[in-house]
Amino acid sequence: MLNHIIDPVVHWLNLAGTVVFAVSGGLVAARKNLDIISFILVGTITAIGGGTLRDLLLGVSPVGWVGAPHILWICLISAALTYFVAHIIELKHRWLLWADAAGLALFAVVGAEVALAHGTSGMVAIGMGVMTATFGGIIRDVLCQETSLVLQQEIYATAAVIGAGSYVVMTAWLQVDRPLAVAIAFGTGFIIRALAIVFRLSLPGYRRKSPDSGT
Amino acid sequence: MLNHIIDPVVHWLNLAGTVVFAVSGGLVAARKNLDIISFILVGTITAIGGGTLRDLLLGVSPVGWVGAPHILWICLISAALTYFVAHIIELKHRWLLWADAAGLALFAVVGAEVALAHGTSGMVAIGMGVMTATFGGIIRDVLCQETSLVLQQEIYATAAVIGAGSYVVMTAWLQVDRPLAVAIAFGTGFIIRALAIVFRLSLPGYRRKSPDSGT
Amino acid sequence: MLNHIIDPVVHWLNLAGTVVFAVSGGLVAARKNLDIISFILVGTITAIGGGTLRDLLLGVSPVGWVGAPHILWICLISAALTYFVAHIIELKHRWLLWADAAGLALFAVVGAEVALAHGTSGMVAIGMGVMTATFGGIIRDVLCQETSLVLQQEIYATAAVIGAGSYVVMTAWLQVDRPLAVAIAFGTGFIIRALAIVFRLSLPGYRRKSPDSGT
Repeated sequence: MLNHIIDPVVHWLNLAGTVVFAVSGGLVAARKNLDIISFILVGTITAIGGGTLRDLLLGVSPVGWVGAPHILWICLISAALTYFVAHIIELKHRWLLWADAAGLALFAVVGAEVALAHGTSGMVAIGMGVMTATFGGIIRDVLCQETSLVLQQEIYATAAVIGAGSYVVMTAWLQVDRPLAVAIAFGTGFIIRALAIVFRLSLPGYRRKSPDSGT
Repeated sequence: MLNHIIDPVVHWLNLAGTVVFAVSGGLVAARKNLDIISFILVGTITAIGGGTLRDLLLGVSPVGWVGAPHILWICLISAALTYFVAHIIELKHRWLLWADAAGLALFAVVGAEVALAHGTSGMVAIGMGVMTATFGGIIRDVLCQETSLVLQQEIYATAAVIGAGSYVVMTAWLQVDRPLAVAIAFGTGFIIRALAIVFRLSLPGYRRKSPDSGT
Repeated sequence: MLNHIIDPVVHWLNLAGTVVFAVSGGLVAARKNLDIISFILVGTITAIGGGTLRDLLLGVSPVGWVGAPHILWICLISAALTYFVAHIIELKHRWLLWADAAGLALFAVVGAEVALAHGTSGMVAIGMGVMTATFGGIIRDVLCQETSLVLQQEIYATAAVIGAGSYVVMTAWLQVDRPLAVAIAFGTGFIIRALAIVFRLSLPGYRRKSPDSGT
């Protein structure tokens, strides 16, 4: 389904993001000492959750992976492999953070592009990009009772907003060439997330102003 | 999409409910000291979550706000403003409870009406009304790790059941004029929730009968 | 909707699974001392959650129970009755475990069958079976802040994988007669879950290999 709408570059970016997020789901399963079936469940949900919600909301019916079973195979194999090699990856924890940052930036661009291809407005396309990039991770954390992505201080969703937003601005409004727009938007989202990881950047959180308030 | 199906009164009620729930999402974000992007994410999900699920289940494709981006703008602006004025609203905590009660009653009627307009049975329409009224708040609480609406003792979902139920009884079965039915059903749902707030009303919770049982 | 696609046997299995899961939702509500409206909400969501997600993903529009309100009535009555008799059922706690095992095995077969009837590949059908069997329980536990099914050690989702998998292998690949395949697949899934209950079976959880790692 997706294959007919989006071009090969976005198609491959989508597969790359799928692998990365399936592995990230497996790593959370590792932290919880789950069995291999749970690795596969959590990895798959993490990898396809965001794109599935996007497809449902856009009215893509059935959703993308129903007609493209290789997506499920990729999730299954990525998550199952993680079961056997998680102890190696964990030693390289920061490497995983980088991969997750890449997945975030990839899916933000893919989500915005799929939405635009369905004729949505720019605002909706940005929302779809953010959703595609973050929703899988949100379900992963809710299922595994980890602190939700939404609650973390460090810049995360913001990188997806800027990645998807810059893509929409470039393609829908500035008529930038698509391959160039993909590269710039991906790079922008990735770099912002990368800076957040390296320098522990966060936007200012809401602070109560009244002196008598506590948490 | 909705605009063609429901009449102007319900349309405006829907927008009013959207603002109220976006603000309520922002206030939960404030309690968690989140940043402005998270205010917008949580506020938007709270405001459109219930209606989105309803549209998906009814087969409205794409869901309402995809073709009506002003809904997202309303959410964005309401939640972003909440970031700057939450300390004022919090001082008027009970005012927010009232606004939330209004949103609950509004969305219960809107949800039931949209379902009936799609030709569902009365039972399904009541379910859709309850879902539209409560689902956004449920996701908000799950995402922010607040005690779920479902678990609270005070009457809440019950007010939505009665609001949506009275609307269905009046329009589908008693042939009451729609504007009148909207007013009565909204008033009924709102007053029940209001009484619950003022008098801390709750339905009897399940109690174990055997003497040896604990929690 | 479903009625036209699946045969009478699967239809009745689906209703039986609906009752069992609505009761299981009610029993979790009992543990939380919720009121009768919450029993109905949690029971209904548990019973129809998995099938609803499956229908959404497959593009069944509107989802099955929207056009079949008796499903909602069955959920409502099952959950409401649970409110009044939960203290009896709880005394027979293990009886409920068995009923839940039956529901799990039933929905795994029903989910795979519905997916195959919509022309999906075997891999997708297995995924749909697992989802139909487990998703309602997952939402139930998230809503009620119980330890998620995904995190429990005992074999659970694995039984659904094997039940749905054996059904797909038999019908799609081995051309086994459908009634026979239903019986064998249901029996296989049920027995695996039953053995897990009796002997507290679990698959090996992931264990960190490095000596210096803790939980």
